[in-house]
Amino acid sequence: MEFVCKKSIRFHHCDPAGIVFYPQCLVLCNEVVEDWFDEGIGIDFYKLHAEIRRGVPMRHLEVDFIAPSMHGDDLTFTLVVNRIGNTSMDITTTAAMGDEVRFRAKQTVVWADLGGAPRATPIEGEWRERFGRFLAPS
Amino acid sequence: MEFVCKKSIRFHHCDPAGIVFYPQCLVLCNEVVEDWFDEGIGIDFYKLHAEIRRGVPMRHLEVDFIAPSMHGDDLTFTLVVNRIGNTSMDITTTAAMGDEVRFRAKQTVVWADLGGAPRATPIEGEWRERFGRFLAPS
Amino acid sequence: MEFVCKKSIRFHHCDPAGIVFYPQCLVLCNEVVEDWFDEGIGIDFYKLHAEIRRGVPMRHLEVDFIAPSMHGDDLTFTLVVNRIGNTSMDITTTAAMGDEVRFRAKQTVVWADLGGAPRATPIEGEWRERFGRFLAPS
Amino acid sequence: MEFVCKKSIRFHHCDPAGIVFYPQCLVLCNEVVEDWFDEGIGIDFYKLHAEIRRGVPMRHLEVDFIAPSMHGDDLTFTLVVNRIGNTSMDITTTAAMGDEVRFRAKQTVVWADLGGAPRATPIEGEWRERFGRFLAPS
Repeated sequence: MEFVCKKSIRFHHCDPAGIVFYPQCLVLCNEVVEDWFDEGIGIDFYKLHAEIRRGVPMRHLEVDFIAPSMHGDDLTFTLVVNRIGNTSMDITTTAAMGDEVRFRAKQTVVWADLGGAPRATPIEGEWRERFGRFLAPS
Repeated sequence: MEFVCKKSIRFHHCDPAGIVFYPQCLVLCNEVVEDWFDEGIGIDFYKLHAEIRRGVPMRHLEVDFIAPSMHGDDLTFTLVVNRIGNTSMDITTTAAMGDEVRFRAKQTVVWADLGGAPRATPIEGEWRERFGRFLAPS
Repeated sequence: MEFVCKKSIRFHHCDPAGIVFYPQCLVLCNEVVEDWFDEGIGIDFYKLHAEIRRGVPMRHLEVDFIAPSMHGDDLTFTLVVNRIGNTSMDITTTAAMGDEVRFRAKQTVVWADLGGAPRATPIEGEWRERFGRFLAPS
Repeated sequence: MEFVCKKSIRFHHCDPAGIVFYPQCLVLCNEVVEDWFDEGIGIDFYKLHAEIRRGVPMRHLEVDFIAPSMHGDDLTFTLVVNRIGNTSMDITTTAAMGDEVRFRAKQTVVWADLGGAPRATPIEGEWRERFGRFLAPS
């Protein structure tokens, strides 16, 4: 299963060249992960942090910037899970305008226990099952 | 030769977890590239865009987030060039607090002609020579 | 008539104190103005700039921060017009969580001609009529 | 006494109109307040929050945007204190390029106790004395 959501490119995402300033692509990816937890995984991202004391800090990130996006573009974001390890997982977020892929981010996020200084912790079975629903076919 | 500069982690770089929000690491890397052009390459980044009509849009990005940084940290950024191709180059920016590496970004940037819609253009000899001073030993 | 829209407080809007970093309140107000033009005034904000060559740069801003907002809050934004002058207008944007007002921004924006260096220009009759639909009762 | 510091307008502060996106003016003002505490008041802004458990959340803000700033501009920021009340104070930050004032922000900040939910607390004598050194002549 894929998680899909839409985001508009806002004036404030864009730089003097008139295109999205590339770190803003990652702010948008962060919003997609929030939306995925809220709507796909079934846990409010705020509660995940504040109540369940779990977070998903970034360990590794690879992004291909394939075509620029501009103010006013309505992008479709598609998120899939590529790997669920013991204490981390790989996700891929693809942003497209219609059929044209604009950028693709592969991210390794850690499953972190936030009770105290954040530290990697094994992904519990319930969460593993939920994340697993979004595993991409290999 | 390496290009070295220092940047402080500001309140506004940090998130509710008290650490740098990861896209802000890339905003800081973008500042380092600006500083490198200004002080290392010898061309004001503004003039590069507005007068010389060249820019360095991002094509590919890989970041390892090794340890978190916090408000008040004073990071040392080190930039080297790893490859100078025909119309693009690879640079690596490493952010450290003392001996501890916090994150490392490998970026492929395109040498773009901004006269009209941005398009990749061969790196001219003068620029190639300037960038070459920062080539890392292989 | 009031223009109303909803915005969620995202992780990336918040600071190490766990509340919205105040400049982000203004980024959100800017999104509300975009939405107002798109949905209330009937012109895509991108086209306003790129095709009609009009923009609304900020001349004066007053904000009361009444109560803090946190990650996960769903705010309702209400925008009204308070004054339509010759080349500028006053708008008020109020952000609330249920009945609790969180912040209120009064902004004087200039109606700017972007063909060349931006300069204030009289608000044309058609736009004056459209903005006038959102005039608050005095 | 005035507190003076310099800040460069970065590529990432600017919007598609090529000028500073106005909320970024306030991010810069926040940096100036950080610098003022560090260098003028004599307490690291991080330690103020983390160790002394005091912060300066914004209660009211007024900004005049007098002239636009562009990528590459080197602005001089001047901060003075206008009023020191029981639990709040007024400060004015003026940003100029040479003799040309670009924007001026008047801010009422609360002196907040961060031990628990932030709440206004009387400004202690030692801090009152330090802030008082920057009082503008009336």
